[in-house]
Amino acid sequence: MAAGEARHLRDVLARNVRMLRQERKLSQEQLADASGLHRTYVGSIERSERNVSLDSLNALASGLSTEVWSLLQPKRD
Amino acid sequence: MAAGEARHLRDVLARNVRMLRQERKLSQEQLADASGLHRTYVGSIERSERNVSLDSLNALASGLSTEVWSLLQPKRD
Repeated sequence: MAAGEARHLRDVLARNVRMLRQERKLSQEQLADASGLHRTYVGSIERSERNVSLDSLNALASGLSTEVWSLLQPKRD
Repeated sequence: MAAGEARHLRDVLARNVRMLRQERKLSQEQLADASGLHRTYVGSIERSERNVSLDSLNALASGLSTEVWSLLQPKRD
């Protein structure tokens, strides 16, 4: 599995989390509280730094009131 | 984040991986080889036992020639 593919997926997640968070006018701290995750962890996800697990994806999706699969779907700009 | 939600997501992934693997007439061992994962790891994913990471999801999707997001999308039976 090419490192490029792994990096691409982290970028897709980072972009979707940031876009949805901003649409909902949430700070990273507010999203962290809503997801039960640490604020610095949310920040590192938005910088594509994390190999996020299913459980954390689930927590993020619920904090953003969306579906996990849509967090990983590339969106056309 | 309710444990039920986490369990549900693992079940969705398990069902989708098994369905796609069988559609492609691959054994768990063949999918493990194609994904660069261990055979027993593929088996435990199909039993909903794993809190899979993005990198492993990426490897599975590439071994199944599909998109990561579709592996996590509930399918209507």
